[in-house]
Amino acid sequence: MARKPKGPLIGQLDLGRQVPQRAKERSGRRGGGRAARVAQRQEKGAPQAVRPGLTGGAFQPLSDPDIARIHEAALDLLDTIGIGDPTDELNEIVLAKGCHLNEHGRLCFPRALIEDVIAGACREYVIYARGSRSPDYDIRAGGRRVHFCTAGSAVTTFQYESKTYRPATLIDIYDFVRLIDQLDNIHLVGQPVIATDVKDLFAHDISVLYAQIAGTEKPLSMSFADRSHIKPGIEFFDLVLGGEGRFLAKPFVVFGGCPIVSPLRFGEENLGVLIETSKLGLVNDIAVAPQAGATAPAPLAGTLVQLAAETLACLAVVNLVKPGCPMTFAMWPLVSDLRTGAFSGGSGEEAVLAAAAVQIGKYYDLPNSVGASMSDSKIPDAQAGYEKGVTTALAAHAGCNRVCEAAGMLGSLMGCAFEELVIDNDMLGMVLRTVRGIEVTDDTLSLEAIKQVALDPGHYLGHPQTLALMESEYLYPDVGDRTPPGAWEQKGSKDMLERAHEKVVEVLSSHYPNYIDAAADAEIRKRFPIKLPLKAMAAESGRW
Amino acid sequence: MARKPKGPLIGQLDLGRQVPQRAKERSGRRGGGRAARVAQRQEKGAPQAVRPGLTGGAFQPLSDPDIARIHEAALDLLDTIGIGDPTDELNEIVLAKGCHLNEHGRLCFPRALIEDVIAGACREYVIYARGSRSPDYDIRAGGRRVHFCTAGSAVTTFQYESKTYRPATLIDIYDFVRLIDQLDNIHLVGQPVIATDVKDLFAHDISVLYAQIAGTEKPLSMSFADRSHIKPGIEFFDLVLGGEGRFLAKPFVVFGGCPIVSPLRFGEENLGVLIETSKLGLVNDIAVAPQAGATAPAPLAGTLVQLAAETLACLAVVNLVKPGCPMTFAMWPLVSDLRTGAFSGGSGEEAVLAAAAVQIGKYYDLPNSVGASMSDSKIPDAQAGYEKGVTTALAAHAGCNRVCEAAGMLGSLMGCAFEELVIDNDMLGMVLRTVRGIEVTDDTLSLEAIKQVALDPGHYLGHPQTLALMESEYLYPDVGDRTPPGAWEQKGSKDMLERAHEKVVEVLSSHYPNYIDAAADAEIRKRFPIKLPLKAMAAESGRW
Repeated sequence: MARKPKGPLIGQLDLGRQVPQRAKERSGRRGGGRAARVAQRQEKGAPQAVRPGLTGGAFQPLSDPDIARIHEAALDLLDTIGIGDPTDELNEIVLAKGCHLNEHGRLCFPRALIEDVIAGACREYVIYARGSRSPDYDIRAGGRRVHFCTAGSAVTTFQYESKTYRPATLIDIYDFVRLIDQLDNIHLVGQPVIATDVKDLFAHDISVLYAQIAGTEKPLSMSFADRSHIKPGIEFFDLVLGGEGRFLAKPFVVFGGCPIVSPLRFGEENLGVLIETSKLGLVNDIAVAPQAGATAPAPLAGTLVQLAAETLACLAVVNLVKPGCPMTFAMWPLVSDLRTGAFSGGSGEEAVLAAAAVQIGKYYDLPNSVGASMSDSKIPDAQAGYEKGVTTALAAHAGCNRVCEAAGMLGSLMGCAFEELVIDNDMLGMVLRTVRGIEVTDDTLSLEAIKQVALDPGHYLGHPQTLALMESEYLYPDVGDRTPPGAWEQKGSKDMLERAHEKVVEVLSSHYPNYIDAAADAEIRKRFPIKLPLKAMAAESGRW
Repeated sequence: MARKPKGPLIGQLDLGRQVPQRAKERSGRRGGGRAARVAQRQEKGAPQAVRPGLTGGAFQPLSDPDIARIHEAALDLLDTIGIGDPTDELNEIVLAKGCHLNEHGRLCFPRALIEDVIAGACREYVIYARGSRSPDYDIRAGGRRVHFCTAGSAVTTFQYESKTYRPATLIDIYDFVRLIDQLDNIHLVGQPVIATDVKDLFAHDISVLYAQIAGTEKPLSMSFADRSHIKPGIEFFDLVLGGEGRFLAKPFVVFGGCPIVSPLRFGEENLGVLIETSKLGLVNDIAVAPQAGATAPAPLAGTLVQLAAETLACLAVVNLVKPGCPMTFAMWPLVSDLRTGAFSGGSGEEAVLAAAAVQIGKYYDLPNSVGASMSDSKIPDAQAGYEKGVTTALAAHAGCNRVCEAAGMLGSLMGCAFEELVIDNDMLGMVLRTVRGIEVTDDTLSLEAIKQVALDPGHYLGHPQTLALMESEYLYPDVGDRTPPGAWEQKGSKDMLERAHEKVVEVLSSHYPNYIDAAADAEIRKRFPIKLPLKAMAAESGRW
């Protein structure tokens, strides 16, 4: 460079350049220990910089009085105009327990009833991991423990080469799931796409379940198209676990749907699922998702009022069917782009609404979920990056138990991309590191180390404390790049998308798991319409 | 699509699709009002979704007891080992006021002295905007008001076509600044790069100032290479403002440097600047930037302890030179990638450290700044997106008065990209919208609207409340894309970088401001070595 400034300037802060040369050399000579450190990092039980279930809660966008006002307004709605389109089956259960129909035939919930329901609701549930993922990836949903989950049920898959979308298939689901299986910061695997090539609804749901269970031992979520699929589903799960009744004892899948058609009406099919899963005592893994400006009020506060009312109504249904039955308090606010009326998932409005919704769920002390990382971008680019990063960080820091849609989704949930899953895994790791926060102890305050180093040698490279903390205090990205500009140019100026694609091909051309044992697999294929051929689950299929 | 689900499924949440057709048509017919709405949006004084100086503070990563422990440990350091390499000039001032030299010749600050300094320090300062930007872009640094600023002093500029970096030039600075001039969510313009083509230090500093002042009327920051440049700088500013003494009455530029060489030593040149600007009563716009694992302890808490001590020492110097003289409490923690020892700006550790540093500054109730948006990526891609989004969002929500490095920077501050400035402007808008948060009032709770719409028509599109809030409740991205996948593919599957480049060319080929009036410009060019030719400041230069 032409100019050599005499002192450090604002911004010119690569203090690596200020480190004495001798220290750099010493640091370089530590190279021999690198393999050992990598081995240590991979060793099970070794200290890790991040893990599933770190505690959030440091971000609180609403004040306590604001939450109380939203709660009061929601109780008012439930008490006066209630929820439309209740089914006869529902009315039969709840009218005897304190609900009533108003003059419009809408189901109303008195304030005291809702307050009792909240007080008696289940405050924690567990979704179990299987095999080698147990117990590290068990999800204990409750408190402010944060987990990242896929979801989305998109209809299309992004194609890297052509930068276009094509209809998603069942094989895509298996491929997405086995990729996620190798991405440590995705803790639960929900269905990223639907299998548009499987037309029969039952064959679809069962085959999707098969693809998910074969592809990973992480906990799972999915949605059933019809309540009649639930019982065969449980039979399937018991076959996987090797014995009748094992699933109900230790569920590794949660399911549900959207029982509400906003504003403030029930949806018949998913209300049926809700009643059915409640009777069985299963986790009701719902999502209530009104869209501000379209199916919810344009003021963000108004959307929260309506959404709180809708979600509390579901909580009441669950608890009136079976007191204490677990339900995800899933306030999922969505946002319209008011220029077109279409759903937009990547805005600042979405980010702050979702975090506020999480905060309301935690005000009730209920296990919850929210949608985040729902970028409007159609390609893994800078827009996707910041929309996902900001929405996810705020939802996680609000203390959301399950941040759903956290990885892979693009185009306002219209598509999923393999490469985006890999990229989001790094993004989620970064966010998790921020959620872990800063531990303040006598050791970490480092007074003695500072006093010693300030006098001599004047830097912390090579200090025992620094070496000891390399793997436990700091997280290193997988495909995120930290090389200097020159080295980066020499390697072809690759962007994150190109590097992620290389990782996708590397994993998908080699990692073909089937986490269902062979005997169970044969039995399952005998009893159920599994549309995923075994030969598609092997490297010989040659598609990657 | 092959499959038509009967009810809404989790994830399949494009509720735009659920909106009744009639409503969509009605919405479409509103097209005639669009021009009026755009005009309204552009009208000065019209309600805006975001503005400079929104209030943060909802993110608090440290507990109160943790902050108190960090504070106590910092006071211990200042009292016992103090700061090394004090100059004679400094000692002469401060030894008479309660400081003392310890056995290592290091300058120590007793606890009571530091506590007095904090109690008496300046709690707010203003950096004024000029011309049409006044007063909307005046920066009143204090409280938890959030502003976004460029900075960085990188040595290279990213070249879109070749995806490589070249040495940055003075003309780049003018081009960066006039581009920023058109990006509403960047509130203060610091020097994004240094002019490597101007070798003389005085000509460099004066020409950079010229390029900044000619290119925008937003408030400015910069760093002087030598204290001897300050007085001519002020003469220059007075010429711009049209009268001697006008700058000191209403400063539109702040400046400073890094007076500390971490760990815990003074840097001679910038300490000189600090003393000089303090004597003049100017804002001391410093940055203290130790790097965890290299020039600060590896435990994040230890880095905060050392950094708090270093920044408090600067505060003490300023206030012992001139009590109450304004200083930016600029705790800028940086992070090493411990695999190489190099600075890494885009990590989760960086994000949470920076937010914690902001929180400590606010614990002292001092105007502050921090570095964020310092991605390690070399290209505006997904990595740059999420690293910038997460670091910026957390710093802003912690309530930072001036989030510096907020736009344009890449490669761990080694380079700046025109396209990244455009992209970051959208990112910053999104973050600002989340900082604005959710207003809870009788109106926004929307109880009456909800009751009315829930019964009929069942959606909020076209509701007067929705129409009234289009421009004030919702922010629309500039180059961020929200079109559906099909439309996006038809337009060539462009990513954010491609669209941003189009915007760069559009602005830089047409917007050639000179916000210095012609007579003052002639006088300035007569008195100072301005290396930016007037002919480079016109479309005829043909470089875009």
